[in-house]
Amino acid sequence: MVEMTQYLLSRPHTLISLTAFADRYQAAKSSISEDLAIIKEVFEDEGLGELHTLAGAAGGVKYIPKMKRSVSLDIMTEVCRQLEQPERVLPGGYLYMTDMLGQPRLLQDVGRIFATAFADRDIDVVMTVETKGIPLAFATANCLNLPVVIVRRDNKVTEGSAVSINYVSGSTKRIQTMSLARRALKEGSRVLIIDDFMKAGGTVQGMRDLLNEFNATVAGVGVFVESGEIGTEERLFNDYVSLAKLTAVDMKTKQMIVVPGNYFES
Amino acid sequence: MVEMTQYLLSRPHTLISLTAFADRYQAAKSSISEDLAIIKEVFEDEGLGELHTLAGAAGGVKYIPKMKRSVSLDIMTEVCRQLEQPERVLPGGYLYMTDMLGQPRLLQDVGRIFATAFADRDIDVVMTVETKGIPLAFATANCLNLPVVIVRRDNKVTEGSAVSINYVSGSTKRIQTMSLARRALKEGSRVLIIDDFMKAGGTVQGMRDLLNEFNATVAGVGVFVESGEIGTEERLFNDYVSLAKLTAVDMKTKQMIVVPGNYFES
Repeated sequence: MVEMTQYLLSRPHTLISLTAFADRYQAAKSSISEDLAIIKEVFEDEGLGELHTLAGAAGGVKYIPKMKRSVSLDIMTEVCRQLEQPERVLPGGYLYMTDMLGQPRLLQDVGRIFATAFADRDIDVVMTVETKGIPLAFATANCLNLPVVIVRRDNKVTEGSAVSINYVSGSTKRIQTMSLARRALKEGSRVLIIDDFMKAGGTVQGMRDLLNEFNATVAGVGVFVESGEIGTEERLFNDYVSLAKLTAVDMKTKQMIVVPGNYFES
Repeated sequence: MVEMTQYLLSRPHTLISLTAFADRYQAAKSSISEDLAIIKEVFEDEGLGELHTLAGAAGGVKYIPKMKRSVSLDIMTEVCRQLEQPERVLPGGYLYMTDMLGQPRLLQDVGRIFATAFADRDIDVVMTVETKGIPLAFATANCLNLPVVIVRRDNKVTEGSAVSINYVSGSTKRIQTMSLARRALKEGSRVLIIDDFMKAGGTVQGMRDLLNEFNATVAGVGVFVESGEIGTEERLFNDYVSLAKLTAVDMKTKQMIVVPGNYFES
C-alpha cells in the first residue's frame, strides 16, 4: 500500500494498468482494486487529487493531482500578504518576487494550482520564456506529466536553427526578440503558456505569435501575478488565468495591494 | 498509512515530530511509530530513500530521498545512449540536450541522483546560472528541500541592486558578465552549484568568484554532462560530480561517445 501510494504519486497523469500493478506486487487484480479504492478515498478526502479508473482491456488507473479551491485560496492569500511587503517595490513599479520563485515547496503548490485550473484542457506541452517563469512552468508540467519548452531571449549556439520574432515588452516599451529552436516544438502542438508576471501581456502575445510560426495552438495561459493597473481594453487578450493581482502601487509610500487573481473569481 | 506516505514524500529533508503526526491522525505515538517502521522498510527495500528517526523531545522523523547506485547507473546509461544520437551534434562540438532537460520524469530522476550525491553536505542553497541549468537545480533542490538562486547573464530591472563579475566562458572564449541581486543570497551561505554542461569550467568558476563577493562558500559542484575532451590540467578545478561524460566527438561523422560520469567511478 505504501509502495502503491508512492508509485501513483510519482506518476501523475499516467495510465497504469491493473496488470502492471498485479505483476509488480505479485497480487490478484481483485486485491489491487481494493487497495486502489482505499487510496482513492484518502486522496479525495485529503484533497490531493483524483484517481480515475478506466475499465476494459486498455484500462487501468490514473492519478490526477488537484488542489481544493479553499486550500489554494489560503495559500495564495498568504502569498499576497508576503508580496505586499514594502521592500518588494522596485523602481518602475515592479515587484521583487525572485526569492519566492526559488522556494520549492511554494512552487509545488503553485504548480498544483495551475494543474488543477488546466486539468481538463487538451495539452501537449508547457511553454514559458526565460527566466523567472521557468520554475513555475516545470512545477506545473510535473503535475501534468508534460514536457516543457523554454523560449529564449537570445539565440544560443547550442540550440541549432531557430525561429525568431520581435515583440514589444510592456516592461521596457522596447522592441525585443524571442526565439525558439525549430526542433523544440512539433508542428500542431497544443501549448499551455505559463509566466510569472503580466502587465499588458506583450510577452505572452509574443509567445502566441511565435506559436503561429509552428502552426501550434494556445491551450491556455496561466500567470502567477497580473498587474491590475492595466485596464481591460489595454490588455492584449483576455483568456488567461491569474493567481494573484497587483491592484495598486504607490511609489512614494511603497504601499501595494495584492489580491487573489481571477482564478478565484469564477 | 497512505496519507502518512504522501505526507513524508512531499516533505523531504524536513523534520516532522511524532506529536505532529499523532495530532494529525488522532492516534497514539506508539501506533504512529509502528506505521513509520513499515514505511521505513518499504522505502529502504524499494531504494526510495531513508527515514531517519531522531529520539528525544526535539525528535521526529525525516525523509531523505535517495537513489540506489545501480538504479542511477541504469538511468544514466540510457541517457548516454540517447545523447549519442548523431542528430544531437551541433556546430562547435556542442550537444543538443534541451529536449531531455524539458522532461519532468527524467529531471526528477537526475535531481534525486544529485540529492543522493550531496546528501551528507551542509548546504543552504542551490545555485545555477540561466538558462538550461535551472530545471536541474530545481529538481535537486526539491529533493533537498532547499531554495534556488539563479545567476543572471544580464542585470534585469526587476531584481534591484546586483553584484556583477566578468568571466571567460569556455564555449565562446569571450568575456561575459554574470550578476546576482544583492538580496538573493545571504552572506556566508554554503552553496551547491548545479549546471547542465561543463567544458573547462569557466562558467562554474565565474559562479565561484561571484560567491566570494557574498562571502559565501562552495559546498559542492554537480554537472549533468562534462566534456572529457578537456585534460585535467586545463580544468579550472577538480572537485565536482558529473553524471555523464562526453569523451569524443567526430564532427565529420557526427559520432559521439558519451559514458557515465565520475559519480559512478568512486
